[in-house]
Amino acid sequence: MNGQKRKSKKLVLDSGKVYNFLQISLTSNRFNILSIDILKNSRADGDPRLKNLIDNHLVSQLRKDQFYKKHSESRTQGIIVEFSGKLIENRLPDFKNKSNVCLLALDQIEDPQNFGQIIRTADCAGINGILFPQHHSVPITQTVLQVSQGAFVNMPLYQLTNLSQGFEELKKNDFWIVGLENSIDAKPWYKIDYGGKTVIVVGSEGKGLRQKTMKKCDFKATIPMKGKINSLNVSAAVSAILFERQRQLYKD
Amino acid sequence: MNGQKRKSKKLVLDSGKVYNFLQISLTSNRFNILSIDILKNSRADGDPRLKNLIDNHLVSQLRKDQFYKKHSESRTQGIIVEFSGKLIENRLPDFKNKSNVCLLALDQIEDPQNFGQIIRTADCAGINGILFPQHHSVPITQTVLQVSQGAFVNMPLYQLTNLSQGFEELKKNDFWIVGLENSIDAKPWYKIDYGGKTVIVVGSEGKGLRQKTMKKCDFKATIPMKGKINSLNVSAAVSAILFERQRQLYKD
Repeated sequence: MNGQKRKSKKLVLDSGKVYNFLQISLTSNRFNILSIDILKNSRADGDPRLKNLIDNHLVSQLRKDQFYKKHSESRTQGIIVEFSGKLIENRLPDFKNKSNVCLLALDQIEDPQNFGQIIRTADCAGINGILFPQHHSVPITQTVLQVSQGAFVNMPLYQLTNLSQGFEELKKNDFWIVGLENSIDAKPWYKIDYGGKTVIVVGSEGKGLRQKTMKKCDFKATIPMKGKINSLNVSAAVSAILFERQRQLYKD
Repeated sequence: MNGQKRKSKKLVLDSGKVYNFLQISLTSNRFNILSIDILKNSRADGDPRLKNLIDNHLVSQLRKDQFYKKHSESRTQGIIVEFSGKLIENRLPDFKNKSNVCLLALDQIEDPQNFGQIIRTADCAGINGILFPQHHSVPITQTVLQVSQGAFVNMPLYQLTNLSQGFEELKKNDFWIVGLENSIDAKPWYKIDYGGKTVIVVGSEGKGLRQKTMKKCDFKATIPMKGKINSLNVSAAVSAILFERQRQLYKD
């Protein structure tokens, strides 16, 4: 559990997303709300949804100088929630009797902006969970949470000691592993069938997939570049591939 | 010209991308290189490509303390180029005799990260230019340039006084205007035909397309959300739609 349960985190989102988070926390017991700081006269201060939801002894209404002394984050929208709780799982659940599950695996993503964006996009594209390795990957930092726009709350995040072992386990449960990689034996991303149980694996920003990860892939997909710089951000690549899956699932 | 010609900008990229930029600057006359600061013993310092390309009187090799005193940017990779030149165009060129042109229009994008990411993705997806309005849009800041990973060099950026007028002009040149917008009369994004001359319009992060922009659209496309948070970043939406266009162009 890596002490995730005890460390507190700050949530810096707009009041609508904080509202979602609080609703989920109240019903799921996954998170403990420690404090809610609201900037006086901010939009969050006037949000009526929050009034009905929050336990008043947790809320502090702060003047501008107090608020920014306590929270130096430049991009807050007038509300900051401190919470503790379990953000990650260390084991994969049993997917045996489930159909149409799609997981995303991140092989050594190092940039928290990318990680957060990918969680956000994965939520919008109906992904069922994200796998990432314990080592050489950015952990779930405050930046990851903030950039995800709260999508981490509904997205199971599986931090595995060994990604390849996870793939083996999933293969036994009828998953196909698709790796995104610019290699000569890769097919264009839209020629892969994403129906059924699928794991889509993307590699690190500079280096792509590791050799040992590639060996576990049943299919390789590539997104051919059509420009001059040709440096597609990993979160943009994830969006292209996940919405191609959506197209395939819903095209009729 | 908004004084763009005279103001200098800093370019913070890795040495490979700086190499591309310098190559283009030398051949195109679009940019003037004012100085090149290289951090001693960094990877950029040892890059042999740079040695052959750069005019030595422009280069300063700086010790760590000197380099970071001059450049406080935290994420540099050991090389910073100062340059001046024209980053934007204020008029659309004549597209009359061109076929298969696709332009992207950004209706009031306010986040420089998003703008930069969109330029980067547009380059990878073979887009021919980006239109954006003079007002209520982030200008081309250093952050935009850096996040674009140098893709701004090859991507025509058209800053128009009036976006709607630009659309009228393009329509006279046989362009179809496709707006990305969650409205009931919008089709799923993959049911739009992106062959031929197309402008794809995306709206601001929170507010979507303006009413007057929407009125100019011949087609409306939507990307249905499949999650719980359902807040797709505009640059992720751009990636989904631009690579759907690529799929349509190259699927056979």
